[in-house]
Amino acid sequence: MPIYGAVEAGGTKWVCALADETGQVLTTEVIATTTPAETIPAAVRFFQRGEAPVAVGVASFGPVDLNRGSATYGYITTTPKPGWANTDTVTPLREALGIPVGFDTDVNGAALGEWRYGAGQGLDTVVYITVGTGIGMGAVVHGRPLHGLTHPEAGHMRIPHDLGRDPFAGSCPFHGDCLEGLASGSAMRKRWGRPAEQVDDAAAWELEAEYLALAVLNLTYTLSPQRVIIGGGVAKRPSLLDLVRARLLDLAGGYPGDLPAMDEYLVTPALGDLSGVTGAVELAREALERTKRAHRP
Amino acid sequence: MPIYGAVEAGGTKWVCALADETGQVLTTEVIATTTPAETIPAAVRFFQRGEAPVAVGVASFGPVDLNRGSATYGYITTTPKPGWANTDTVTPLREALGIPVGFDTDVNGAALGEWRYGAGQGLDTVVYITVGTGIGMGAVVHGRPLHGLTHPEAGHMRIPHDLGRDPFAGSCPFHGDCLEGLASGSAMRKRWGRPAEQVDDAAAWELEAEYLALAVLNLTYTLSPQRVIIGGGVAKRPSLLDLVRARLLDLAGGYPGDLPAMDEYLVTPALGDLSGVTGAVELAREALERTKRAHRP
Repeated sequence: MPIYGAVEAGGTKWVCALADETGQVLTTEVIATTTPAETIPAAVRFFQRGEAPVAVGVASFGPVDLNRGSATYGYITTTPKPGWANTDTVTPLREALGIPVGFDTDVNGAALGEWRYGAGQGLDTVVYITVGTGIGMGAVVHGRPLHGLTHPEAGHMRIPHDLGRDPFAGSCPFHGDCLEGLASGSAMRKRWGRPAEQVDDAAAWELEAEYLALAVLNLTYTLSPQRVIIGGGVAKRPSLLDLVRARLLDLAGGYPGDLPAMDEYLVTPALGDLSGVTGAVELAREALERTKRAHRP
Repeated sequence: MPIYGAVEAGGTKWVCALADETGQVLTTEVIATTTPAETIPAAVRFFQRGEAPVAVGVASFGPVDLNRGSATYGYITTTPKPGWANTDTVTPLREALGIPVGFDTDVNGAALGEWRYGAGQGLDTVVYITVGTGIGMGAVVHGRPLHGLTHPEAGHMRIPHDLGRDPFAGSCPFHGDCLEGLASGSAMRKRWGRPAEQVDDAAAWELEAEYLALAVLNLTYTLSPQRVIIGGGVAKRPSLLDLVRARLLDLAGGYPGDLPAMDEYLVTPALGDLSGVTGAVELAREALERTKRAHRP
């Protein structure tokens, strides 16, 4: 049975894994994200050490270049993370391992993992949002990760901001009070002066639920997903999801008339913290199939 | 050469057409949208009169049921239009004509027409917005119209509304000041007391441009389209598009860093008023191909 390699390439750690063709993760190694010169070779060594994978998938922090026709395809592009701007992650893996390498964003990877093996199985259109330090969004539409111009960046969508209720100007360096600027972990820390997990005021979490409900509402009206999966550290807050569901239903105002039950529509990841790395397995499988198709006579 | 039938089923008129397999419209007839009992048989008669089409596509006003597994697939569902709620449009055409019938929303049809033959050719992800009496949105993603839970309803997305600048409460019966409630032709008429085409105040059009730019920004961050096509009566206002492009660039705040030239990114329909009916031709072709696949041994 073929073995697939997978990397969830995050800004603080790279989770490397080997998995079987059912997406089952067999072994993992966590590598600190230091510099490209250290982290990428450490990942290569992981894949050289055990059973040789037939392909590797990388689900990466971004922004990234997903345009296969571009000279910088497979690069992490304009990240503010020191040392990582304009870093080619695909070529070093492909050249060192000599196997096909799949590539997408971490959130598209998580969406793909959940769609294939988790909370999105059997559906056509699935959205994954992560609410942590930042807010990211990925989606699977018609069985493939969503991208076009670049990739979804729905953390930067603009939503109503009632300055009377919430005078905080927002923390996004590009937009101030976009969704991420109002509702990310960074925004909460800046607004309340302490990390989200130390915020206990009920009104603070009602405000957070308001912003997340507006975000899910806009995603619902724009992408019409059959399910929205919400992950990330902030989203793990007990009872937050119920607040979001209640506000979402209220904000929808009965339109469309046939919204599904909220606890089936807005859910946590079935794969827990393995959504991204499992999606990377799927990226590996797709890369292998693409290579096979390209070589078919 | 096969002939395809097409219907752009609007709330005031049905545009019926015959087209060749290159999407070229050969003949059209406009039927007033009165009652289902009158309008649907009139469309059937149009298709029985000339050269017999091999399949028909319907791009319909909505909301509609696009779920092929549903008992009400092909229905116009909860429309407020008198007499048209819960109307089966697909079955009467299929039974009277004995040919495959494709079905989607009018805006997904327009997106599909522009993608196949117009301003979206060769792209993977294309968004079509229409700004008229209401605001509708369709998209083609990975070569297929976007739907999942239902279909996009991005006219109802929530955007920032500065009550100081614009004290109008919004005209949407479901949401008040959603995008459609602030920026549709109906909203303009209600806010300014006259139809949009009679509004000449520069500040009014700057406000309209602000809302449309926020909408296109949110669509950009959510769907990452390679191009956004904007049609409909209100969008025909001279110079409005340039105002929207300028505000969009400003609101994006340099993120992502590689936005294309605005006059290539946000464009008018290349097919003019034929986007929808041309998309319906494509829906007919897809319906025929689906039927052939289903009958393949």
